[in-house]
Amino acid sequence: MKSLKSKLVIIGVGHVGSAVLNRAIAFQLANEIVLIDMDEKKAFGEALDSSHATPCNYSQNINVHIGDYSECKDAGVIIIAAGPSIMPGENLDRLVLAERNIAVIHDIMPQITHYTKDAVIIMITNPLDVTTYCAAKCFDYPENRLFGTGTTLETLRFKRIIANHYNVDAKDVQGYMLGEHGNSAFPAWSLLNIGGIPADQLDNFFNKSESLDRQEVAKAVVQVAYDVLNCKGYTNTGIAMGACRLAKAVLGNERSILPVSTPLKGEYGLTNVALSLPSLISENGIERRFEVNLPTDELEKLHFSANSIKGVLLANKLI
Amino acid sequence: MKSLKSKLVIIGVGHVGSAVLNRAIAFQLANEIVLIDMDEKKAFGEALDSSHATPCNYSQNINVHIGDYSECKDAGVIIIAAGPSIMPGENLDRLVLAERNIAVIHDIMPQITHYTKDAVIIMITNPLDVTTYCAAKCFDYPENRLFGTGTTLETLRFKRIIANHYNVDAKDVQGYMLGEHGNSAFPAWSLLNIGGIPADQLDNFFNKSESLDRQEVAKAVVQVAYDVLNCKGYTNTGIAMGACRLAKAVLGNERSILPVSTPLKGEYGLTNVALSLPSLISENGIERRFEVNLPTDELEKLHFSANSIKGVLLANKLI
Amino acid sequence: MKSLKSKLVIIGVGHVGSAVLNRAIAFQLANEIVLIDMDEKKAFGEALDSSHATPCNYSQNINVHIGDYSECKDAGVIIIAAGPSIMPGENLDRLVLAERNIAVIHDIMPQITHYTKDAVIIMITNPLDVTTYCAAKCFDYPENRLFGTGTTLETLRFKRIIANHYNVDAKDVQGYMLGEHGNSAFPAWSLLNIGGIPADQLDNFFNKSESLDRQEVAKAVVQVAYDVLNCKGYTNTGIAMGACRLAKAVLGNERSILPVSTPLKGEYGLTNVALSLPSLISENGIERRFEVNLPTDELEKLHFSANSIKGVLLANKLI
Amino acid sequence: MKSLKSKLVIIGVGHVGSAVLNRAIAFQLANEIVLIDMDEKKAFGEALDSSHATPCNYSQNINVHIGDYSECKDAGVIIIAAGPSIMPGENLDRLVLAERNIAVIHDIMPQITHYTKDAVIIMITNPLDVTTYCAAKCFDYPENRLFGTGTTLETLRFKRIIANHYNVDAKDVQGYMLGEHGNSAFPAWSLLNIGGIPADQLDNFFNKSESLDRQEVAKAVVQVAYDVLNCKGYTNTGIAMGACRLAKAVLGNERSILPVSTPLKGEYGLTNVALSLPSLISENGIERRFEVNLPTDELEKLHFSANSIKGVLLANKLI
Repeated sequence: MKSLKSKLVIIGVGHVGSAVLNRAIAFQLANEIVLIDMDEKKAFGEALDSSHATPCNYSQNINVHIGDYSECKDAGVIIIAAGPSIMPGENLDRLVLAERNIAVIHDIMPQITHYTKDAVIIMITNPLDVTTYCAAKCFDYPENRLFGTGTTLETLRFKRIIANHYNVDAKDVQGYMLGEHGNSAFPAWSLLNIGGIPADQLDNFFNKSESLDRQEVAKAVVQVAYDVLNCKGYTNTGIAMGACRLAKAVLGNERSILPVSTPLKGEYGLTNVALSLPSLISENGIERRFEVNLPTDELEKLHFSANSIKGVLLANKLI
Repeated sequence: MKSLKSKLVIIGVGHVGSAVLNRAIAFQLANEIVLIDMDEKKAFGEALDSSHATPCNYSQNINVHIGDYSECKDAGVIIIAAGPSIMPGENLDRLVLAERNIAVIHDIMPQITHYTKDAVIIMITNPLDVTTYCAAKCFDYPENRLFGTGTTLETLRFKRIIANHYNVDAKDVQGYMLGEHGNSAFPAWSLLNIGGIPADQLDNFFNKSESLDRQEVAKAVVQVAYDVLNCKGYTNTGIAMGACRLAKAVLGNERSILPVSTPLKGEYGLTNVALSLPSLISENGIERRFEVNLPTDELEKLHFSANSIKGVLLANKLI
Repeated sequence: MKSLKSKLVIIGVGHVGSAVLNRAIAFQLANEIVLIDMDEKKAFGEALDSSHATPCNYSQNINVHIGDYSECKDAGVIIIAAGPSIMPGENLDRLVLAERNIAVIHDIMPQITHYTKDAVIIMITNPLDVTTYCAAKCFDYPENRLFGTGTTLETLRFKRIIANHYNVDAKDVQGYMLGEHGNSAFPAWSLLNIGGIPADQLDNFFNKSESLDRQEVAKAVVQVAYDVLNCKGYTNTGIAMGACRLAKAVLGNERSILPVSTPLKGEYGLTNVALSLPSLISENGIERRFEVNLPTDELEKLHFSANSIKGVLLANKLI
Repeated sequence: MKSLKSKLVIIGVGHVGSAVLNRAIAFQLANEIVLIDMDEKKAFGEALDSSHATPCNYSQNINVHIGDYSECKDAGVIIIAAGPSIMPGENLDRLVLAERNIAVIHDIMPQITHYTKDAVIIMITNPLDVTTYCAAKCFDYPENRLFGTGTTLETLRFKRIIANHYNVDAKDVQGYMLGEHGNSAFPAWSLLNIGGIPADQLDNFFNKSESLDRQEVAKAVVQVAYDVLNCKGYTNTGIAMGACRLAKAVLGNERSILPVSTPLKGEYGLTNVALSLPSLISENGIERRFEVNLPTDELEKLHFSANSIKGVLLANKLI
């Protein structure tokens, strides 16, 4: 098996891409980081600014620079953060972005595949499940080597909300948001535990007089995206960590289980859709998806989420 | 609440204490690390050697030096790794060490309390539950500010064995070894999951033709201590990580859940014994213990483990 | 001596403050990070977004939240990044910002001193030397406990430019930009070396056919600020690293030598001005400034720089 | 150019090799670490113990295991720490080890070259310059891809001693010990500076009433090796950091300047000898050596050092 080169390419250097860049530098994720953006000036400015962080004592002498798609040739990981985002005040659903960003994917993917089919591609562009489905299905890219960040971000948010509620280290919260990256994402309560203590025992153990309001939490996880969006105008630092954690699992060949989006192949009876399930991530990309056991109500939410995504895929003739 | 000073004191700088020192430096756990050992020459050599690691680009300029107990005065965390260890070929039970190391604790603790009752004390000296019980009960130290590493190490080993079996990132294995740090430690199978997938579904999900042999694993976790001991003559690098992870939870005020040993106060009907339960660790030390729900067979193992420890406590007139 | 609490307060959460926040989280700089901004909504959004990065495996469970000035009470370090910045297309000199940001300092400092004179304050707000002078002189703050990032950023840029020219690890470039943080900063060529090889031998050693054009480099270091500004609309990730490196020297009590801005007390015959000289930074803030030997031409540049800053101080009745 | 795989092989897992292992894990230096030792049981014990450190939250899921020389096939870096060391009480000169360890090199190198000439080999086995010369000259290994840690360790010690004397961050001390790794190593005072302040101005700047006694320091740097040896019975944690810093420069392709040992090709008129000069280290190994300008007295020490090494090379018929 070919070894991944310690080279990261970031396509799209807006708020999200630049946050990915700076988290990746702090993480010492790669020896070389290349920025590609249609707005080459913006990319140049970001590379320049970040390159001033690396002469510091605690930093690796990472080579940060801009480039064109030929830089993908020997990349280990390519992160796609291109395309417009939802803006505060716009219709608050990632799915409205679909048409615009499907075009973006159709612009980017052939330029990548012209140079490589070896890199692991991590998609961030929204609507995530739609762009992931499109990228995975339309360009003959090796299917295990491309996935979307999916509900990795919602899962981080879910863990933070639960951790704050019970006042524990968020790293000890084990659980997932599944389904769509966006409005129909849902908590897999059946998989939630804190330090091994199952969800239904938490209130008791943490001496909470009122029981955790699951509907509130489920809503809050989705809502917090809009809170961030409305408060700061965009979301970027949370998703940057999510994407870099995934890239670390790939470049570190960690075989970590993280919820990412890929086209399903019959899991839960679902095909013709990409959404997020817990998946094992290695240097090969997705090693496997876990069709975890879900109770009826969560299955319903999964199918609702799938249908929501399928609607956009259909409207855009992707299925 | 008083803030912990970023100062770590390590008492006992044999194989374990010196491994703790070097892991702590790599972890940038504290601004100052002080070594105390009856063999001052050995401590001096370890401090000196490790001080040559800190001029390096990626290192913090940590002040590593030897000292006496007065250094405890403003310590944030004190790690006790003093006393003789089990040697290969000796009767392979940590409990035989009891008498010798209870004396060691009786030597050390008054010297600490002479200078401080503010530091969080982390005990490593074996037999861990006995020394922890002794240190916690006989010297009027604030009860939340002292605990033993306990089954933190067995838990790391358990995670590694399970992770190797299913070929996943060991960080995604959630579970505990509970009870005694030593021969009667047992896996809390009921709390085990990998990425949220419960123990009893793992074989199915990981396509294992043969089911995981739980008795084998339980034995292997205990046996691996002796494997390390017999192969290299001592165990140190695993426990060093365990102790530093606990110290990070304290100095970082993380509120992490880790299985540490403390005297019980009626949990599972148990008193007059120290053993390991999942516990919430903050800058205050132990915030709370979790009396997790255990099935009958695990309860039996817990009580067996408690009795095993109590036997030694009794024999040494500690209860 | 009182020990610094592992708590960082960031005042002003625009492009710079938010970059400081995210670098500080990645650096595990503090157990608690508090954001204060007049635009509380923006601060809330940044805290929220960044809090979604901390549930991740490799992250410390840092408590990130917004607050008011009472949070300064037990802060170890306070970083001031408030106030408007130069915008692309504006008159490209930091000094034009003076009047506006002196007012900002007059708003902020009394609110800090109401709660603490123990924290080490690190100033980023521009024009840096003017705001630093104002903050240091007008509010009776302990003089060693307040300094400006100064030419720390220019020095990082200088190292990057030199490192790129000779194609070496930028961490091996030792040298400084001194004087004003801004247009009159100048390279102290007399102190430059790469891995101990003095500046005047570098071309020879690195087999460069053309000698390094020092005037070009000096210009480039200043110009690159405007390049970043014009290309991306602001500068933030470089300065964020600079500020966090300084905070690490403080919180880690490293006694590192870094070029920061403080009011001079007769060095080089200069008083009534703040500018950057190499300084020793510990948990007490500035331990001392180094009046390094400078050749005549560099002394001239230093005095030119001092006069440039003094002009603004005078115009604003600060001297 | 072929990219280095993120795989580290450590040959020889005694005190030094095991310290390298644990520093490498903390450093997240490689995705896979393989231990090779004639005493397979010892290597197995070290791998096992260290593998219990990796399930921890802050650790990478590094694959640590034992193996045979076929593991070198796709290694990025191979560190050789095999062979007996000087013991306390033995004639205190590394050169007495020569005969024994030349045989060790003759055993190891053909087994490596059977599988690879691509890995960068970092030699630690003493007497370092002799084993490095032997390994570099007798096995047709690509000359840039093999070097010895050399005076990297003495340089760390030198920086620590100077930093302690002036009470500054040791990372701000720039300087080198050069020549032999061992008794005839000498400080290149002409290259020493602290934060750019030249050696001859230090006493003045740091307000020292007595001037630094250079002969004392030079002696102390060499002596401290024996102090560590006599106090703890061996030296390992300092050299482990040195070796891992070098491996980081290679695997991170940093182009860092560090003093390593390689056969000279006429520098200072010297051939037929390996010793340490400042060298630029990248993924290719040694990119170049710097024949830095040395004053007459340091040149004399260099030639004395060279002759000392040559004596051993001659006695062992290596030249």
